[in-house]
Amino acid sequence: MSGQILRMSSLFVRTLRDDPSDAEVPSHKLLVRAGYIRRAAPGIYTWLPLGLRVLRRIEEIVRSEMDASGAQELSFPALLPKDPYEATGRWEEYGDNIFRLKDRKDADYLLGPTHEEMFTLTVKDLYSSYKDLPLSIYQIQTKYRDEARPRAGLLRGREFVMKDSYSFDVSHEGLEASYATHRAAYIKIFDRLGFEYVIVRATSGAMGGSASEEFLAKADVGEDTYVSCSHCDYAANVEAVSVRAPAARSLEGLPAAHAEDTPATPTIDTLVSHLNAAHGREQGWTAADTLKNVLVLLKHPDGTTEPLAIGLPGDREVDLKRLEGQLEPIEVEPMTDEELRKHPALVKGYIGPEVLGEESASGIRYLVDPRVVTGSAWVTGANVDGQHVLDLVAGRDFTPDGTIEAAEVREGDECPACEDGTLATARGIEMGHIFQLGTKYAEALDLKVLDENGKLVTVTMGSYGIGVSRAVAAIAENTIDEIGLCWPREVAPADVHVVAAGKDQALLDAAEALAAGLQERGLTVLLDDRTGKVSPGVKFKDAELIGVPTIVTVGRGLAEGVLEIKDRRTGERTEVAVDEAADRVLAEVRG
Amino acid sequence: MSGQILRMSSLFVRTLRDDPSDAEVPSHKLLVRAGYIRRAAPGIYTWLPLGLRVLRRIEEIVRSEMDASGAQELSFPALLPKDPYEATGRWEEYGDNIFRLKDRKDADYLLGPTHEEMFTLTVKDLYSSYKDLPLSIYQIQTKYRDEARPRAGLLRGREFVMKDSYSFDVSHEGLEASYATHRAAYIKIFDRLGFEYVIVRATSGAMGGSASEEFLAKADVGEDTYVSCSHCDYAANVEAVSVRAPAARSLEGLPAAHAEDTPATPTIDTLVSHLNAAHGREQGWTAADTLKNVLVLLKHPDGTTEPLAIGLPGDREVDLKRLEGQLEPIEVEPMTDEELRKHPALVKGYIGPEVLGEESASGIRYLVDPRVVTGSAWVTGANVDGQHVLDLVAGRDFTPDGTIEAAEVREGDECPACEDGTLATARGIEMGHIFQLGTKYAEALDLKVLDENGKLVTVTMGSYGIGVSRAVAAIAENTIDEIGLCWPREVAPADVHVVAAGKDQALLDAAEALAAGLQERGLTVLLDDRTGKVSPGVKFKDAELIGVPTIVTVGRGLAEGVLEIKDRRTGERTEVAVDEAADRVLAEVRG
Repeated sequence: MSGQILRMSSLFVRTLRDDPSDAEVPSHKLLVRAGYIRRAAPGIYTWLPLGLRVLRRIEEIVRSEMDASGAQELSFPALLPKDPYEATGRWEEYGDNIFRLKDRKDADYLLGPTHEEMFTLTVKDLYSSYKDLPLSIYQIQTKYRDEARPRAGLLRGREFVMKDSYSFDVSHEGLEASYATHRAAYIKIFDRLGFEYVIVRATSGAMGGSASEEFLAKADVGEDTYVSCSHCDYAANVEAVSVRAPAARSLEGLPAAHAEDTPATPTIDTLVSHLNAAHGREQGWTAADTLKNVLVLLKHPDGTTEPLAIGLPGDREVDLKRLEGQLEPIEVEPMTDEELRKHPALVKGYIGPEVLGEESASGIRYLVDPRVVTGSAWVTGANVDGQHVLDLVAGRDFTPDGTIEAAEVREGDECPACEDGTLATARGIEMGHIFQLGTKYAEALDLKVLDENGKLVTVTMGSYGIGVSRAVAAIAENTIDEIGLCWPREVAPADVHVVAAGKDQALLDAAEALAAGLQERGLTVLLDDRTGKVSPGVKFKDAELIGVPTIVTVGRGLAEGVLEIKDRRTGERTEVAVDEAADRVLAEVRG
Repeated sequence: MSGQILRMSSLFVRTLRDDPSDAEVPSHKLLVRAGYIRRAAPGIYTWLPLGLRVLRRIEEIVRSEMDASGAQELSFPALLPKDPYEATGRWEEYGDNIFRLKDRKDADYLLGPTHEEMFTLTVKDLYSSYKDLPLSIYQIQTKYRDEARPRAGLLRGREFVMKDSYSFDVSHEGLEASYATHRAAYIKIFDRLGFEYVIVRATSGAMGGSASEEFLAKADVGEDTYVSCSHCDYAANVEAVSVRAPAARSLEGLPAAHAEDTPATPTIDTLVSHLNAAHGREQGWTAADTLKNVLVLLKHPDGTTEPLAIGLPGDREVDLKRLEGQLEPIEVEPMTDEELRKHPALVKGYIGPEVLGEESASGIRYLVDPRVVTGSAWVTGANVDGQHVLDLVAGRDFTPDGTIEAAEVREGDECPACEDGTLATARGIEMGHIFQLGTKYAEALDLKVLDENGKLVTVTMGSYGIGVSRAVAAIAENTIDEIGLCWPREVAPADVHVVAAGKDQALLDAAEALAAGLQERGLTVLLDDRTGKVSPGVKFKDAELIGVPTIVTVGRGLAEGVLEIKDRRTGERTEVAVDEAADRVLAEVRG
């Protein structure tokens, strides 16, 4: 980067004292207040010069590491014809989540949310032999999603910048190698971006495929919850946690099921109280002894709906996000009372397995938590108002249609990967996602190459994304403090912020001279050369808000030949002689 | 630019022997054949790695010169809300030419074709005082137009990259200075891009405003026609040529108009023959003595239509493009016979001024060529089948509703700017457009600032565009030869193309060593390291097709310690010693 001076006197920026009314999260408030971005429409932002500089620096880090990993950059259009998306079924699967439009000839188009189809077809167009592979290609491009709830500024936008790449291999071993190469490149990228992140196991969502990991920025405002083990290195997005199922137990000698009157026990709490009062036993009863049956409504992308019953231990709630994670692109809603009444076999508050399942009276598919193993005995609804059944044994008295990971994961849960650990939960922002996509798109679009024996084989693909514009907000969110933005060096809009703290000409001249010296040394300088009504106090506040990592004040000390260098993050101040200042700052910046 | 090696053995490129079936112009054929771009949909292209490199280099030249001129970069969304475009009337004016869409909440959006509204509103948001101005801001961004006839590959696309900038000033003098600054920056940019261009006067089209110039790339396939004077420095887009009207003449003593039978003279040719036969005069009759009245239909953006009559000397045709240039955003169509029959006063082939004009029997607006001055006498239709009127004098016998520049401009026409020159015509591709927009958008969107006296004044704007993706094709078009692409150095996808012309290991090693040496010297090397079935002949053909300006062949000469450096443009070949090759190539590239 060659040196440059940005002057606050002419820079297209205005800082605001007040938070914008539509901003919910700290990074969003500060990025608007500090003049980095402006809202153009819900989830759609304009990049002002300072914001664009940060975006571009992130892009450049991503690009340089992708190039270094051997991936090649290309660029697809954002405006895409319907056909390829129809071929893979995604035109329909995306439902309301994509922007669709027609051209003047009434042909259907979409604004690309991801480009699997285009990557696949382009490789099919250019390549035909195993000798051409492996190949990794990527783009850094503006993408579109018609989010139902655009929120948190750049964190969940409707127009956003992504780096998306795909690897193409002839074998699973090749895919694993391409995946490993990408993973290593991602670690380099996220290390350089300078914020705290964690790599967690992930579901592959709508994409299909097998191995899948996410890079999450640690952030309380994050939409993703992840768990990590106290003992081993297990970490996973909560959607991807697979509960360790207990071993199945023998059915022999288990007491027979018996229905009991349990008047006025429509909730788990009232049921447990009743059990302890009326059916006391040595170890007592807890919610974990009950089997709760929750009804939800699945909404398919084509608009049709379908009921689903989920059986899980009564001490856990259904986690809709986790459930949706298993069922994508299906969306899930709690079943309303009105919907429930359409199924006469279901008695609200007393629903039991007897009336659930595809073969049952209701015909509703019935999936249970993995903890509901053969031989486990439960207290559950008896399908009669005011009655429950005790000692109902899975695999003897009822057989569900299958299992599903839908129960909430809680702080302190057993680690699924080791014997000794428990899980801690925290929140994060999804910054990157890498996964072994497999042959889904290659099959749908017929991407085959000739192998060594002249036989056509379907290509196997990996898919790798980084949210580039989201990174601006995520890095901000992870690094801000109570006084403003606080950028890591590699992504800051400037290397150093020089404040001329007064209107005295000597002081302005000294600030100019320092800026020139820093520019000569290859640094980008944000120079606050404003005169007029702008007080030193306003300048200091702006410098803190804007968040360039090193702030140099040219102020009263100048009379004694000294300037002050301040570290924006630590607040540490150092006085330096005027003629040493440029070299000292350079040393600071280059670390 | 740091050095880099691109290996043909792994580069994501495939050259094609045959022209793509949908390509009309040479640059389009070659860009597809050489693996720079691929069509994704009509007027929508994918940039493959080689093409993206050229696009990025052009972007960087534009960016660096814009920055050097003091303009500041920002970036607006491509997906824009309807409101601002409604406020300026452009939502409707654009007609079918923009892509419109609705989001999931049924709100209206468009894909931005140009961003006047967003620039204006953002300045209004941030700035409020004359002290903040002048300001020049720009973006390099993907834009959209739903062209009726996307053509010529990147030359007229529906998704394309533009640099657009705007200047903001408080006075016309300020605007003129901002305009001059932009003009100077454009000259630097187009000089660096390395192709032949011409700066011509232009109309300001739909934009309104006054001074306006275009930068045209010289190209036979260009959609624009421009004229230049043989004598002075006048040059103009043909749409912008203002015919020099002769002086008005005295009406005194002119003979009275008289209708004559002119049987079977529905065309100018038949009429002139008849005049010379039946009404012979010393100087004879030519088509220029006749007044032809042409009826067209104006299509307004709101879909309504309106007839218009144009009177012009019979030796000239109406130039619909020139006419549309005056009337934008109105579109113009020739009037059909069916439409003509709706106006009973109009007698096909014999239409005269008597029945034309807003006050006439037809009520059709009547505009004439500037040559139809007061006192000029004409032979024209008598509004009776088989009759014309002679000596019909403008300003005496008829008064048109006004004048319009709609007549074709021809090679050899008088220069409108000097007394002695004549005009030559040529074709070009519009690469840049600069113009003094004035207050149109500032007024529509209420962009005012306080002046020195604390009074609100409307800001005056300049508008400046460069077609960045179009430049890829225009530069290609301007520089290609019969064997392939032939890039100017500053935009070439690589600095040098090293061909290992054979499969011998020593030869491949020498090519690798040379590439490494060139990379060390900071050059980008395209290294043809392909082995297998790729013959030296295929490699040479590919090198010529791809068009990197310097080609180094590592071939048979290697045994004698020499390599061959070839200039792609001139074809000139030089033998150099292996150990001097890297420095020689560096000297060649750095010029």
